[in-house]
Amino acid sequence: MLEKGYIQVYTGNGKGKTTAALGITLRSICAGNKVFFGQFMKGQYYSELKASEFLPGLDMEQFGGACFVRGMPSEKDFEDAQNGLKKMKDVLISGKYDMVVFDEVNTALFFKLITVEAVLEVLDLKPEKTEVILTGRYAPQEIIDRADLVTEMKEIKHYYNDGVNSRVGIEK
Amino acid sequence: MLEKGYIQVYTGNGKGKTTAALGITLRSICAGNKVFFGQFMKGQYYSELKASEFLPGLDMEQFGGACFVRGMPSEKDFEDAQNGLKKMKDVLISGKYDMVVFDEVNTALFFKLITVEAVLEVLDLKPEKTEVILTGRYAPQEIIDRADLVTEMKEIKHYYNDGVNSRVGIEK
Repeated sequence: MLEKGYIQVYTGNGKGKTTAALGITLRSICAGNKVFFGQFMKGQYYSELKASEFLPGLDMEQFGGACFVRGMPSEKDFEDAQNGLKKMKDVLISGKYDMVVFDEVNTALFFKLITVEAVLEVLDLKPEKTEVILTGRYAPQEIIDRADLVTEMKEIKHYYNDGVNSRVGIEK
Repeated sequence: MLEKGYIQVYTGNGKGKTTAALGITLRSICAGNKVFFGQFMKGQYYSELKASEFLPGLDMEQFGGACFVRGMPSEKDFEDAQNGLKKMKDVLISGKYDMVVFDEVNTALFFKLITVEAVLEVLDLKPEKTEVILTGRYAPQEIIDRADLVTEMKEIKHYYNDGVNSRVGIEK
């Protein structure tokens, strides 16, 4: 249990945002905390979903795959993200968790699947001792203003540019 | 087991470098890989040391606290870091691990506890299928040149600046 919880944001175009959220989750569980890890725009296979089998006190949920057709989100993508945000609100106000991760929420905001006002309203409900982590590229200024800590992951060099695909156990 | 392993670097002044290394470790273990996580310049209590109790296939080791006296490294700090690098070399060439993390190695380089030539020599021995992660501020150019992926964690906003101390389960 923390004395006071803050709002942390991991954004930018570099590798390591969801990864850092997983790392802080691991560290938090190691300290005996309870963590909820909610993932927007994810529904396919990710190794990290197995983490809750290993880590006591970790609950994970994915809110939909967001397989945009011709680059356009479908009605279902909007519904999934909005239902995801509702779930995150319930999780946050339940006070059951010491840390609540909104993984890829910035990306969902970028694609306008949810509104920044709706996310800020949920953040307003954060219990004092709960730590909140928000990840995803393109964090809007309103989220940065609200956060206590913001790190930009900046790509200096990436092997994707050399044609290396996303690998199980590394990127997914 | 990866088809091909790369060298990843997480550097910069922002929060999330060791944290990202922990996250990729968690993801890798979830995918059934074996990971060695070696920490330079760390020897005090960190929650993350408990991670190996939860995660099968994870071995962790710390190579000394580096409590510099009046900002100067002691003889023991040099020895600890150099012995740490020897251990990392043995770990790497053993081929027992799918991923090997050199946590805070860049920081040890910055303080000249070890030389960049010695680290590059160890990296030369990397088995083809082993993924290597190097973390710490101030990654020297030679390390960046050698790496396949480099992310700079850039501090945009940090609550340390508001007087928040390092917290168990969050930063340590």
